[in-house]
Amino acid sequence: MRRATVDFGAAGVAGTDAYPSRRAQRPSILPRRDRCVYGSWRAGGPLTRGQYDAYAERGFLVLDNLFTDTQVAALRYESQRLRQHAATLDPDTLIREPEIRELRSVFHVHRQSECMARLASDPRLLAIAHCLLDDPIYIHQSRLNLKPGFDGREFYWHSDFETWHVEDGMPRMRALSMSIALDENTACNGPLMLIPGSQRHFVSCAGTTPRDHYKQSLRRQEYGVPDRASLAWLVEQGGIHPAVGAPGSVVVFDCNTMHGSSGNITPWPRANVFLVYNSVRNRLLAPFGGQAPRPEFIAARSEVEAVRAPGAVRAR
Amino acid sequence: MRRATVDFGAAGVAGTDAYPSRRAQRPSILPRRDRCVYGSWRAGGPLTRGQYDAYAERGFLVLDNLFTDTQVAALRYESQRLRQHAATLDPDTLIREPEIRELRSVFHVHRQSECMARLASDPRLLAIAHCLLDDPIYIHQSRLNLKPGFDGREFYWHSDFETWHVEDGMPRMRALSMSIALDENTACNGPLMLIPGSQRHFVSCAGTTPRDHYKQSLRRQEYGVPDRASLAWLVEQGGIHPAVGAPGSVVVFDCNTMHGSSGNITPWPRANVFLVYNSVRNRLLAPFGGQAPRPEFIAARSEVEAVRAPGAVRAR
Repeated sequence: MRRATVDFGAAGVAGTDAYPSRRAQRPSILPRRDRCVYGSWRAGGPLTRGQYDAYAERGFLVLDNLFTDTQVAALRYESQRLRQHAATLDPDTLIREPEIRELRSVFHVHRQSECMARLASDPRLLAIAHCLLDDPIYIHQSRLNLKPGFDGREFYWHSDFETWHVEDGMPRMRALSMSIALDENTACNGPLMLIPGSQRHFVSCAGTTPRDHYKQSLRRQEYGVPDRASLAWLVEQGGIHPAVGAPGSVVVFDCNTMHGSSGNITPWPRANVFLVYNSVRNRLLAPFGGQAPRPEFIAARSEVEAVRAPGAVRAR
Repeated sequence: MRRATVDFGAAGVAGTDAYPSRRAQRPSILPRRDRCVYGSWRAGGPLTRGQYDAYAERGFLVLDNLFTDTQVAALRYESQRLRQHAATLDPDTLIREPEIRELRSVFHVHRQSECMARLASDPRLLAIAHCLLDDPIYIHQSRLNLKPGFDGREFYWHSDFETWHVEDGMPRMRALSMSIALDENTACNGPLMLIPGSQRHFVSCAGTTPRDHYKQSLRRQEYGVPDRASLAWLVEQGGIHPAVGAPGSVVVFDCNTMHGSSGNITPWPRANVFLVYNSVRNRLLAPFGGQAPRPEFIAARSEVEAVRAPGAVRAR
């Protein structure tokens, strides 16, 4: 592999924007100016010391079998039901494959399904989020992702934070995502791939964002795409970790951890529920890219009440 | 996963064609009418009893570190040289990515490079091929495959034999392929995936083949694509094996083993040399699809002298 040539900090830290991106002609790598874990580890919490430290170091954690087979069965049943009754859901929240019109994502899923609402306030998930962010939290985004077998599309490398900052106005890095696997994630069916340690660097992307870009961007990325030299540099540092795991396993990852996934030609579909928790102190401002804010179902702006745990997911 | 509904043998075995395909409206699965290994295992050969039996059972074998680091370095150097001097090669043998024009394959590579010719007659490779086919062999096809980093394309599931039979006139299943890794094949960079046991079934594909299809087919598959129900059925039986391995490892697989690979979004390229050995008793006839034969550099018709081992690959 060619040695990566990257520019550190040339984009400059302008004004009150801690993480400028899509403003310069050329990409650059800026240091993270926020912590990755807040507070400090305490005994008796949901994570072991080793898990907590690994998350701080690598920017993600894979927790096997967090949910039982019965709970996974309930979530899969609900996922199937939502797919079959897509016509009853808010059409704006449904994202389909560009050509074949197959349903790929249901956004705002915790507001459209009681079962998913219970999942989003599951006491174990909330305990983990509180342990790592050390603050009251709210749900910034939720969605059901359906990667079909045989022709599941790839998702190119990206930092969620870069988009949430530029397009949604998330000011700092104090948010995390959880991906709850409803199917087996094998090495072969396009599992989530993460670059360990990448959360410590902010890849400032080149170019600008056109208006109303989001409708396309949910299907295909064109803006906010990290450059190859920066990606190669991150991978030289940390390698790539494929998050394989059984149904019911959960990947917890920092908002700035670089991740992506390959296509899926296997017959095995790969569905997951994706939940983003943000600190209430990190509520959205005006988008840093200067565009109009994206809709509520993609980035919560008014629905920012702290979530508390009323009870766990129950099988029906 | 939905239960696969497959049709066994409805396509019929018409006339002298043991493996009819692309003749019927509907796909079907026909039994293999040839052995997978010929002769029988003998002590003192290149494969252990376990390896030989595993190949017979699963239709492939991954041999780690068959080539030394020095030998791999020589092959990589040669691969680089061929890429840089592509203009000096037979232009017909060069296959490029449809849009970006990046070089993806060099066919007939053992006739265009002395280093690759030596590799193709490496005593260890020939001993393995003789051990499994138990006959004098010749090189049916050779190529250098270059799967670049960041945007390496996927290759959908296929049986090589189906194409070689219909489009090239290979009568029976007495051929095997070897893929020699020039780069690390990880779970993440789109490694070869094989369906264990699939070599025992012939997936007869629906539809017919248009004329001069091959020029497109080397870039994108449209004909001779196995149906989803048959693929799902094969995977239910045997699962999927990703052939990961270090540079210098070799995947040996039967001509009818179903295989494919995902795209590659990692920075890690994935080059390999692909060699196909066929029994001299299994020389090509007229294509069973009734089309004109494809060119010599894709399917040897006149260059069918049995290969013998003059010497191993040397580093320079």
